[in-house]
Amino acid sequence: MQNTVSRALDVCDLPAEYRRTRQHTEAIVQPLEVEDTVVQPAAFVSPPKWHLAHTTWFFVNFLLQPHNVHCPWPSADYPLLFNSYYKSQGNHWQQAQRGALSRPTLREILQFRHQVDAIMIDWLNRFDGDIPPQITEVLRLGLAHEQQHQELLLMDIKYILWSNPGLPTYATSDYLSSALRLPAVTTALRSEPSSSWQSTCGIYDFGVNRDELAFCFDNETPRHKQWLSAFRITTDLVTNGDYLDFISDGGYVRPEYWLSEGWDWVQAEAMRSEAHTRDTHTPLYWLQRDAQWFEFGLDGLQPLSLNAPVMHINFHEAYAYARWSGKRLPTEYEWELFAQHTHLLTSRACQPVWQWTASPYSAYPGYRAAQDAFGEYNGKFMINQMVLRGGCSVTPAGHARISYRNFYYPHQRWPFTGLRLAEDAD
Amino acid sequence: MQNTVSRALDVCDLPAEYRRTRQHTEAIVQPLEVEDTVVQPAAFVSPPKWHLAHTTWFFVNFLLQPHNVHCPWPSADYPLLFNSYYKSQGNHWQQAQRGALSRPTLREILQFRHQVDAIMIDWLNRFDGDIPPQITEVLRLGLAHEQQHQELLLMDIKYILWSNPGLPTYATSDYLSSALRLPAVTTALRSEPSSSWQSTCGIYDFGVNRDELAFCFDNETPRHKQWLSAFRITTDLVTNGDYLDFISDGGYVRPEYWLSEGWDWVQAEAMRSEAHTRDTHTPLYWLQRDAQWFEFGLDGLQPLSLNAPVMHINFHEAYAYARWSGKRLPTEYEWELFAQHTHLLTSRACQPVWQWTASPYSAYPGYRAAQDAFGEYNGKFMINQMVLRGGCSVTPAGHARISYRNFYYPHQRWPFTGLRLAEDAD
Amino acid sequence: MQNTVSRALDVCDLPAEYRRTRQHTEAIVQPLEVEDTVVQPAAFVSPPKWHLAHTTWFFVNFLLQPHNVHCPWPSADYPLLFNSYYKSQGNHWQQAQRGALSRPTLREILQFRHQVDAIMIDWLNRFDGDIPPQITEVLRLGLAHEQQHQELLLMDIKYILWSNPGLPTYATSDYLSSALRLPAVTTALRSEPSSSWQSTCGIYDFGVNRDELAFCFDNETPRHKQWLSAFRITTDLVTNGDYLDFISDGGYVRPEYWLSEGWDWVQAEAMRSEAHTRDTHTPLYWLQRDAQWFEFGLDGLQPLSLNAPVMHINFHEAYAYARWSGKRLPTEYEWELFAQHTHLLTSRACQPVWQWTASPYSAYPGYRAAQDAFGEYNGKFMINQMVLRGGCSVTPAGHARISYRNFYYPHQRWPFTGLRLAEDAD
Amino acid sequence: MQNTVSRALDVCDLPAEYRRTRQHTEAIVQPLEVEDTVVQPAAFVSPPKWHLAHTTWFFVNFLLQPHNVHCPWPSADYPLLFNSYYKSQGNHWQQAQRGALSRPTLREILQFRHQVDAIMIDWLNRFDGDIPPQITEVLRLGLAHEQQHQELLLMDIKYILWSNPGLPTYATSDYLSSALRLPAVTTALRSEPSSSWQSTCGIYDFGVNRDELAFCFDNETPRHKQWLSAFRITTDLVTNGDYLDFISDGGYVRPEYWLSEGWDWVQAEAMRSEAHTRDTHTPLYWLQRDAQWFEFGLDGLQPLSLNAPVMHINFHEAYAYARWSGKRLPTEYEWELFAQHTHLLTSRACQPVWQWTASPYSAYPGYRAAQDAFGEYNGKFMINQMVLRGGCSVTPAGHARISYRNFYYPHQRWPFTGLRLAEDAD
Repeated sequence: MQNTVSRALDVCDLPAEYRRTRQHTEAIVQPLEVEDTVVQPAAFVSPPKWHLAHTTWFFVNFLLQPHNVHCPWPSADYPLLFNSYYKSQGNHWQQAQRGALSRPTLREILQFRHQVDAIMIDWLNRFDGDIPPQITEVLRLGLAHEQQHQELLLMDIKYILWSNPGLPTYATSDYLSSALRLPAVTTALRSEPSSSWQSTCGIYDFGVNRDELAFCFDNETPRHKQWLSAFRITTDLVTNGDYLDFISDGGYVRPEYWLSEGWDWVQAEAMRSEAHTRDTHTPLYWLQRDAQWFEFGLDGLQPLSLNAPVMHINFHEAYAYARWSGKRLPTEYEWELFAQHTHLLTSRACQPVWQWTASPYSAYPGYRAAQDAFGEYNGKFMINQMVLRGGCSVTPAGHARISYRNFYYPHQRWPFTGLRLAEDAD
Repeated sequence: MQNTVSRALDVCDLPAEYRRTRQHTEAIVQPLEVEDTVVQPAAFVSPPKWHLAHTTWFFVNFLLQPHNVHCPWPSADYPLLFNSYYKSQGNHWQQAQRGALSRPTLREILQFRHQVDAIMIDWLNRFDGDIPPQITEVLRLGLAHEQQHQELLLMDIKYILWSNPGLPTYATSDYLSSALRLPAVTTALRSEPSSSWQSTCGIYDFGVNRDELAFCFDNETPRHKQWLSAFRITTDLVTNGDYLDFISDGGYVRPEYWLSEGWDWVQAEAMRSEAHTRDTHTPLYWLQRDAQWFEFGLDGLQPLSLNAPVMHINFHEAYAYARWSGKRLPTEYEWELFAQHTHLLTSRACQPVWQWTASPYSAYPGYRAAQDAFGEYNGKFMINQMVLRGGCSVTPAGHARISYRNFYYPHQRWPFTGLRLAEDAD
Repeated sequence: MQNTVSRALDVCDLPAEYRRTRQHTEAIVQPLEVEDTVVQPAAFVSPPKWHLAHTTWFFVNFLLQPHNVHCPWPSADYPLLFNSYYKSQGNHWQQAQRGALSRPTLREILQFRHQVDAIMIDWLNRFDGDIPPQITEVLRLGLAHEQQHQELLLMDIKYILWSNPGLPTYATSDYLSSALRLPAVTTALRSEPSSSWQSTCGIYDFGVNRDELAFCFDNETPRHKQWLSAFRITTDLVTNGDYLDFISDGGYVRPEYWLSEGWDWVQAEAMRSEAHTRDTHTPLYWLQRDAQWFEFGLDGLQPLSLNAPVMHINFHEAYAYARWSGKRLPTEYEWELFAQHTHLLTSRACQPVWQWTASPYSAYPGYRAAQDAFGEYNGKFMINQMVLRGGCSVTPAGHARISYRNFYYPHQRWPFTGLRLAEDAD
Repeated sequence: MQNTVSRALDVCDLPAEYRRTRQHTEAIVQPLEVEDTVVQPAAFVSPPKWHLAHTTWFFVNFLLQPHNVHCPWPSADYPLLFNSYYKSQGNHWQQAQRGALSRPTLREILQFRHQVDAIMIDWLNRFDGDIPPQITEVLRLGLAHEQQHQELLLMDIKYILWSNPGLPTYATSDYLSSALRLPAVTTALRSEPSSSWQSTCGIYDFGVNRDELAFCFDNETPRHKQWLSAFRITTDLVTNGDYLDFISDGGYVRPEYWLSEGWDWVQAEAMRSEAHTRDTHTPLYWLQRDAQWFEFGLDGLQPLSLNAPVMHINFHEAYAYARWSGKRLPTEYEWELFAQHTHLLTSRACQPVWQWTASPYSAYPGYRAAQDAFGEYNGKFMINQMVLRGGCSVTPAGHARISYRNFYYPHQRWPFTGLRLAEDAD
């Protein structure tokens, strides 16, 4: 019920959906210069041309080859270069060295994409609308995977452009809204007085069973019960204006708000990380010029909007903000209960930022990773990362769901991340 | 009820308990050479003489000084050098540089201890048995803190001695059992057939409220409900013999058993870490000589006992072993329910090894860190670490409890760590 | 006298020489894909598009701007991005981060080059053949600088292509010889019996005075005397076949041939450095396939020619080879005396490889660095590097001279480096 | 002639000299606490107890064992632990890990020393005054080696004590002058007007032949000719007062005075290196308190003496100072010529600081390293280091000579280093 949006996929024409998804990826890189698709300004970024090839490798490696559909690699090093991290699928190139590769070129990779797409669509059409379930399942995974890389592409593109001192603009707002169908980051006007939603304590159901949805990731399964105490959660997201108050109040110089590792990050990591001469005692992508604050976005440098949700803060910053505010981060269960009851994601408009939760990324009770290669998709990353919920302005339409569990390391802030606050209610 | 053992403290004569605890710490360093108390062979180890001074700093800084009891520092740099990590208490020396300090000497530090002890006991006795609650509370925290450092001392001493190629013995088994009252690591003879305990699903209570026990750490609070599905948990710990089977079956060369970060650790970290020329594809402290396995212990190098519980494995190794065995690690809730129902810790004999759980170290629902400096004791470390439960052979008698939450980083294996297995029951 | 070749510049038509030199640089990048011009697979490599812009920055910064010739930067960040290391010229981008920049694009940089070239030529022509000496001097430095970057470009291109597992070919031998006028690496057939040249002891003159040549770098000055003992030096270069004998004889596993830092490099650095899965106990760019040796070159992977001079070894390898052979490296004075007397560089054919000498890169007696920014050109690098002499197959025609002092760090081997041997004669 | 001082050794009673030298080493550690002999606060420091054992290992390994004199190792790991870097002598412990070793203890090492000394003296006495030349040669090397470690001990002790925030004093001036016979650092009153010595150009002899002296290191050989241009060299050393002028004039913030690597060191290395919170834009061991300058010495913290020679600067600082002053560093040949003609070292008082020269540490023309293990003593370090000449206040009496070539890396400043200035004269 709460997942009706993504059920939409269920009734899709899969070859058409494949084509649409694949074309959307190319629409994302279309505004870039060739040079933008090559660089890796930080180890966590992947060059856009790598994304283009890796998502294609996925279909060849996990669908065409296992089903003996003829689709030769353009050269023998493709499986090495474009396997991301699947140990079961042979050697893979080191992630931090993806930017060392000038070849294959963007043009060659686009040719590879188009060739694979032609073969895929031809093959899918041969089933005449009756694609076997095991193929459907991998295909849907492949499309969800491609959607994840669409979001990663926009994260990485933003970081790549930001790494150039000239701060080039990715695209016009017009291109963003019409070609990429990205919603403008809605000005999250705070309800006055700021409102919150309150639960009663009790046992609730969370997660989904694999067969309830046309598609979900294994980390969202199975549906299971959890006891929750009563809590309140804010219906508004924390804004740039709120966050400026935190900064002004010494948020980055008072250790009492921070986890020990967070404080270490403030002291040391901040100096080394990210583009070099910029102030790091702010969210990523903020700049101060002539005493005015600006925020770098896909549409270039813009005056900071005080009412827009704060973005590009890491878990440590979210945690410190919450402590400073006298509240705390919600757990992922609290978030999900709130979302279930407020139909947060049922409308077309997605959430503007992924919201950090207090929950470490772990297996749900009863979780079983797939036995085959897809067991490497989620399960092996269930350590040292934190769950984020919601979605963000660059999440592809229909990709997020209430049960969706995104995850990043506590120090990472190049995803489109923000927060909402919670507190015990009793 | 389940915590009756540690309630014993309640009726204690606190000055006597103080004296006993403080003397026990010195009994631990007594067999050492002066040189052993100085070195820091790895960043995670602290020199024993630092432990001796830091635990003393605790009483001066948090009791004597706030209560205006005259107790001058032997020199002005003591607060800097022996504050471990309390940002609220001023600057502190970097942990990784503790081994760079030759001064104060062991002798000076012992003199400092004895002087502080005399002042403390004199001061406590002045209350004539009626120590005010707020002092009792900090005193009990100081004693629990000292007990934690007693265990850390034995962990660090073991690592320090192991770092010498000559592998010197710390003490005779006689000293270990009589002077230090350490239990021999009982040969955990496996029940045949291997037995397990099974729960039914339901809502259970976990944790404690602060006022239920004479003492507990804030991270154990508050008592709260949790829904648990049915599970089975082994009553026996995994043994060295079991672990050898895992090694023989290629446990360290098959990535499918490992978390992604665990596999990275196997590949790379293992090479650099710990004593240098030794095989790292085993638990820490194992050596093979003439095709026979040995284990280094506080009583020197001993033939590996196949029936003893495996020790000194990190979370990644425990996780991989569990996957290889077809089972999983228990959550800390499962462990606690099991312990509640089997009176695991009510007898005098403590558990021989801390047991890794599947639970990341997080705040309990309703957790509130103390507002003062003691808020830094536990809460700020609630990130990127995993919970261990039980206790170990070098945990001071009476220190552990069923609700006790120990925590270490997933790659650390110099604590006395092992595991038991769990699985879903349905 | 011995430097007659480079005197040729003297009578040059400077605007024409400018145009020729600038066009040659572009001819070097012409065979590349855009992507090849962007990447920086190791910190010591610069992206080819950076070379194109930096060499242009040189003329704008050191000629057009000081002479008030209107030539606006395409954008405000050009001076930051394309100043290499001149502290006197303002901030500069970190060398190791050049590969993080996607902008300006190659196309923009080529436009910048063409615009600057038009302005430069127009300006130079305005002097009507009578360019003032102080402009001539900087212009000649700029052209020599551009020639150095032509060689660097080919070094970097080779490394960039090698970093792609597919080992793409840079250009056909035809392009190399006709468009770039690169000599084939002549098969250095060994004289049989191997011949050598012998000096008598005495005082000789070395280096040049600034006014003796149309152009030289300040590090070649002044002409000065030096006493040399008698020595013999081989007229042939060490070949691949010779070097294979060294490898076969355990050259890389016997510490007695190596300097202490060289042996450390063999043990540790080799593991991390350069392309990842390749054997590093060989010169750079060697590969073994099916028990046959290959060498990667600008014309792709070729069977190793045993009679060709060994290339791409660092100082440590050259030193170890010389010790193994029972001889030693010549000093730069010995090399220069030999070159003076054998007319080594007077013919058109340059030396195929730069030859490591035993001489650390230091100031000549009486050396004075320029007072202005050009004082940063050579003098500030006179520490921890070793002198190489000769020239190599990718050194631009007319660039090298007998007095030319090239210099690299002892561990670097991506220049086209080899060696000849010397020994005392007495 | 110029080396008459060290010829004194020639007529020595070698067993007596052995005993005196060995006892002097122990006199150096006598004022230390046991703890001071264990720590290694920086990788370049060795724990004093390691020095005590290593110098003893030298005699056992290179004299007693080759001559079959019975002298068992106290334990099997001594050869591993106390071989410094001789690859020909088997495995050796990593230098940076010497401080990880608590065992053998100081007491055990002293027992080892005394046992070896008894065996050595007994053995030497058995020759009845007629020790064979090949034994004499190694014995003298062993004693010179021990003297080098006496100086290293005092360098390391100074750094070890400095690493303690309490800045403990090593010994009273009385102990320094009477027990250790260390000269007070003479106040180098500047001649007014400041005087210099001037040479004429010509061919001069440098270095020594092995048979001219009772002892010299192989790096001082052979005697050879060198052409020198005319130069002037200051007879006074640069003082603390001079150096303060350099600091006040922005010496550490103006890149134009520095080599490129030196400037990098000023910017970055300085931050990380050495004791942590102290200002690094001064010589090592300087502190400012209440606007007054102090210098830490073996006799504790003392007000900075403006007329004393500046000490504990590295090559980069010496180079930058010389450039700032408008002069340059002398080459080692210029220094040696000056010393030959001014009888600089013939009197008892040694030079107060080692003086950085402009000469990289390289082999002399005709240099041949020993074929056996002693070939590793000097030759393999002839890369990336700079020569220092003279001696310093903690150099053992009779150890230095005019031909003596000391060497350190350009960034190292824990030796007792200073400078004198030179300039071309013509």
